[in-house]
Amino acid sequence: MRNIKITLQYKGTAYFGWQKQNNFPTIQGKLEEALFCLTGEQIEVEGSGRTDRGVHAVGQVANFCMQNTMPLKNLKTALNDLLPIDIRIVKVSPAKGDFHARFSAKRKTYQYFVQVGGQRNALKSDVLAFFPFEVDLEKMQKASKLLIGKHNFKGFCSADTTATNFEREIFDLQIKKRGRIFVFTVTGSGFLYNMVRIIVGTLLEVGRGKLSDKDLKLALSTGERKYAGKTMEPCGLYLKKVEYL
Amino acid sequence: MRNIKITLQYKGTAYFGWQKQNNFPTIQGKLEEALFCLTGEQIEVEGSGRTDRGVHAVGQVANFCMQNTMPLKNLKTALNDLLPIDIRIVKVSPAKGDFHARFSAKRKTYQYFVQVGGQRNALKSDVLAFFPFEVDLEKMQKASKLLIGKHNFKGFCSADTTATNFEREIFDLQIKKRGRIFVFTVTGSGFLYNMVRIIVGTLLEVGRGKLSDKDLKLALSTGERKYAGKTMEPCGLYLKKVEYL
Repeated sequence: MRNIKITLQYKGTAYFGWQKQNNFPTIQGKLEEALFCLTGEQIEVEGSGRTDRGVHAVGQVANFCMQNTMPLKNLKTALNDLLPIDIRIVKVSPAKGDFHARFSAKRKTYQYFVQVGGQRNALKSDVLAFFPFEVDLEKMQKASKLLIGKHNFKGFCSADTTATNFEREIFDLQIKKRGRIFVFTVTGSGFLYNMVRIIVGTLLEVGRGKLSDKDLKLALSTGERKYAGKTMEPCGLYLKKVEYL
Repeated sequence: MRNIKITLQYKGTAYFGWQKQNNFPTIQGKLEEALFCLTGEQIEVEGSGRTDRGVHAVGQVANFCMQNTMPLKNLKTALNDLLPIDIRIVKVSPAKGDFHARFSAKRKTYQYFVQVGGQRNALKSDVLAFFPFEVDLEKMQKASKLLIGKHNFKGFCSADTTATNFEREIFDLQIKKRGRIFVFTVTGSGFLYNMVRIIVGTLLEVGRGKLSDKDLKLALSTGERKYAGKTMEPCGLYLKKVEYL
């Protein structure tokens, strides 16, 4: 059995998230179908993490074990021929036997793109989020510093989670503005369910003046969801990079 | 009755084209539903032309007559609140009684965006077409000159058309390259069914060396579809502008 690592990009709009489901198209489901079609083997694909319905990826990583011995270059081409055009394998490489896309991951980077104010762009309605109110960039940048480091992020996690340990570490959080588009780039040890979307929703409310640094601190110290902002829509979220060091 | 002109943009991916159909979502259908919901009037919306399934618009124009007297600014806001986010009204203005979005149109501009070579981008799979072969820009630019002017474009029209007059005038056709992305911008008096997509498909085959200027001239002179290139996919096509002079 060979252990194979793949890096892939996908547009999440048409899928019910990463995780395989009966009767609904998912990224994992499409990958496993393509692998079965190609090799006849029932291959389980492990992703670095589950992305939600409507969330995109430019650098998702996954791995799987297969018996088939075809050259990896051919495997990449053959998989891309079988996959829908909104899922593309970018890289295929051999992995050590103990490599596991989820358990071996050390850092993940997500980006969130949101247009602030103005009129929503129909052409980007599924790849760019929208926030109708003006915001203060410096206020958001200042508040974002409070999130850096190891914290209990229960207050920034959807109630639907199955997690029991809410400690995560955020290594870096940058906010940049290009015209009306704000780009949040956050790198962490891992992320809870909806965590990035809630962080962005909270920072935007701070930027708008509806929440303060104090609310953000309370969300961190109490773990209560009510102190944080709304969960932003999935369409602005991109899994950018997974690092294994 | 007021005659009202609207300018709108839409992402065509989720729609079965402009023209209203039973049981399938279309742009015209969504507009008429929103107008009915807002006014209780059965209002027929006339577009400058039908865009096909999967084709986008950044400057589509339409008009309709309504009895409702609400201020136009409110009409724009109310319609955008009712419409799906991938259809946005950009402008609403009063029109003269005889203004007709289709019959009054004098010039239309379409743009076609295609990535040439390299790997297809999953994130842009529904807004950017793909052509896997390298092409020669100058060859395409030279051939494109043959299409300028008044011609019988039957050879560049889908067999499914209901048209009987195939004469159209092309005022301008520009091809620009930004890295791997080629942008075709074509302005004409009007376009036949699939005409822009067939023109682009033909020029790309010329650029690739599979068709020559001679084939293009034959397609024009004989009106036979077989001399022209393939119909390119709809996702690269944008209705950019409609002019009424």
